[in-house]
Amino acid sequence: MNFIELENGSVTTPQGFRASGVTAGLKPSGQPDLALLVSDVPAEAAGAFTSNLFAAAPVEWDRKVLRGGAPIRAVVVNSGVANACTGQQGAADAQAMAAYTAERLGILASEVLVSSTGVIGKLLPMDIIRHGIDLAVKGLSVDGGEDAAKAIMTTDTVQKRVAVEFELSGKTVRIGAMTKGAGMIAPQMVLCRNRPKQATMLSYFTTDAAIGREALRAALGVALNQSFNRIIVDGDTSTNDTMVILANGMAGNDPIVEDTPEWYQFVEALRFCATKLAQAMVLDGEGVTKFVEINVSGTVDDASARQIAEAIARSPLCKTAWYGADANWGRILCAAGYSKIPFKPAQVNLDFDDVPVVRNGLAVENADEEAQTAVLKKRSFQVNLQVGTGPGRFVLWTCDLSHEYVNINADYRT
Amino acid sequence: MNFIELENGSVTTPQGFRASGVTAGLKPSGQPDLALLVSDVPAEAAGAFTSNLFAAAPVEWDRKVLRGGAPIRAVVVNSGVANACTGQQGAADAQAMAAYTAERLGILASEVLVSSTGVIGKLLPMDIIRHGIDLAVKGLSVDGGEDAAKAIMTTDTVQKRVAVEFELSGKTVRIGAMTKGAGMIAPQMVLCRNRPKQATMLSYFTTDAAIGREALRAALGVALNQSFNRIIVDGDTSTNDTMVILANGMAGNDPIVEDTPEWYQFVEALRFCATKLAQAMVLDGEGVTKFVEINVSGTVDDASARQIAEAIARSPLCKTAWYGADANWGRILCAAGYSKIPFKPAQVNLDFDDVPVVRNGLAVENADEEAQTAVLKKRSFQVNLQVGTGPGRFVLWTCDLSHEYVNINADYRT
Repeated sequence: MNFIELENGSVTTPQGFRASGVTAGLKPSGQPDLALLVSDVPAEAAGAFTSNLFAAAPVEWDRKVLRGGAPIRAVVVNSGVANACTGQQGAADAQAMAAYTAERLGILASEVLVSSTGVIGKLLPMDIIRHGIDLAVKGLSVDGGEDAAKAIMTTDTVQKRVAVEFELSGKTVRIGAMTKGAGMIAPQMVLCRNRPKQATMLSYFTTDAAIGREALRAALGVALNQSFNRIIVDGDTSTNDTMVILANGMAGNDPIVEDTPEWYQFVEALRFCATKLAQAMVLDGEGVTKFVEINVSGTVDDASARQIAEAIARSPLCKTAWYGADANWGRILCAAGYSKIPFKPAQVNLDFDDVPVVRNGLAVENADEEAQTAVLKKRSFQVNLQVGTGPGRFVLWTCDLSHEYVNINADYRT
Repeated sequence: MNFIELENGSVTTPQGFRASGVTAGLKPSGQPDLALLVSDVPAEAAGAFTSNLFAAAPVEWDRKVLRGGAPIRAVVVNSGVANACTGQQGAADAQAMAAYTAERLGILASEVLVSSTGVIGKLLPMDIIRHGIDLAVKGLSVDGGEDAAKAIMTTDTVQKRVAVEFELSGKTVRIGAMTKGAGMIAPQMVLCRNRPKQATMLSYFTTDAAIGREALRAALGVALNQSFNRIIVDGDTSTNDTMVILANGMAGNDPIVEDTPEWYQFVEALRFCATKLAQAMVLDGEGVTKFVEINVSGTVDDASARQIAEAIARSPLCKTAWYGADANWGRILCAAGYSKIPFKPAQVNLDFDDVPVVRNGLAVENADEEAQTAVLKKRSFQVNLQVGTGPGRFVLWTCDLSHEYVNINADYRT
């Protein structure tokens, strides 16, 4: 690795970023519910957003702003209410949230990105939002990354943040990030460019690297596809999924140019942060007790391997068996079998970590079921499925389905 | 309706059928686990089977037998072990099960259909199977339909059977049926003809109608697509799904010819039976507390409506909200939004039964949330979603996702 991970890193670890997290009053629990992130100088920005048809109003706002191409100064995020399925009033509220933040910061509304997460179909209580923005602006601090990471949480049980540091052209460059999301997690985000590409996970990256917008967008795309776009908690793709990066150039490095060694180094560091947060999101998923890495190989192409991995990751029968640490491998083969990807059952091999389970479509002879079960009792394990000899492969991160998941979601709104 | 439903109907209600259900010893619980169904005379037959790539050995046997085109005399079914993912030994065991049944009945193995349901990946204990067949042959009775319906159950909590009666060319014709299935239910069966088409639900229909094989197969196809192929419990499509009908002609009606009024009458009666059993299967699905009918309309075509309905029916967030009687309609719109079917969010209307929930993509004004919740507290209700003005529509039957579902499936094998 050409970078080091920093202790206690956050979105305010890179130079020139301040943040805050406050209690505006959106959550009945009284927990923090509004976060603000500000770059001291105009920053290049790139974003990726949900592919759900019911893209939330803040997502539509962000797309419009990012397509405009102008630099970004701030991101304001509320939790508790998603401002999705809220029509013209929702669009007006998202814009008003940007405008009010801009006014308080003395910048333009078009320099402010907006995110919301929470219940779908409710209008934002704008008085509370404005009150929260007032508090958040007052609270801005170079130590505010932790507060911001707390304020964007919904059913998350832990805050999720990271930062790394590396050298570029003799300068110290940093990337910081925070994310939230525990349910409605099966991001299929697409980069925002001319066509909207689109995840409710919210994820914000900051860097003090100097990098042009196109190079930044390309880097975000690579990191996205190696991280958030390969996790599935419940399989529901949200209306609000958002991944944004701001690059303010304050590190003073020579601007990073796409496809150069410096760009690859930046991408590697960015990808590390994104992957770490994506995995943390799965492990903190609603009711999750097991982190499961699904490795599918031997298909004609990677897309086929992905389709098989997704069928397994979405299967309630596989997920409940993992919860019960039941080495019921038949359910895994069954899910692969209905994935609509063709393969030869007699060529299928399956291992739990490195413990053989299936060879050539059949239970291994003298199967060590104790060893199989021991793997499934771990908090984190691999399901390694080989369905042929083709070059295709895909790695996906998912989780089990527990009683607690049902508890959380049978009555989310009360 | 041109038919009447009979009290206490079963597969032995039509003339010339005997059945039995016995305890062979496959289930640790000691519950009945082997069923036998016999027609006194050779019967025309048609079948539809799972589309899962890992089609179980008995499914492969049945396809081969049905493609041969010869009449069928018997169906033998075991529960407890699925004989799926069992390779050549599994194939030999399925054939041996048919051969042993044939020997005891004095018929040919090629006149015997075989089904298995239970754990995937285990070999059938053939001594126990043979012992069970011995008992089942001795137990055959014209009153055996109820015992047979009990013996095919796995995680089902109630036996599921039905029979109807109607007149054709001056003769009384009857259709009887039984089915099982509570988990791994998302049948996508295809008629067995030249190409295999393919559900572990098992469903057996008998009729004493005289009807040719092609007309019978066509009737089965219509009934299948209006019933089992539109139910989703957990969304997992099994390796063993089977729907079979035997028609022994003992009613003495003029043989039914496809596309005649008599054929449509037969289809209507068959469809009634299949639909009733399919709905009963959902209501008895693993851990189910709610039966939910999803009506999607206004799409370009029926297939698009189906794809939206399936996304909703498979969504853990929708299913847990129904379990909690939470009128969280945002989850329903969200699932429609990621179904990959294009529509205009601003044209979307949603009702729970006849209670308005969403109009033009927005919460109805002055929404009566108490009335919405009251619908969701019922044991059975409709989700009526209109996404545009197109002619496409689809009705799908599904259920909630409860704590009990997790209980049942976290440790199915012990």
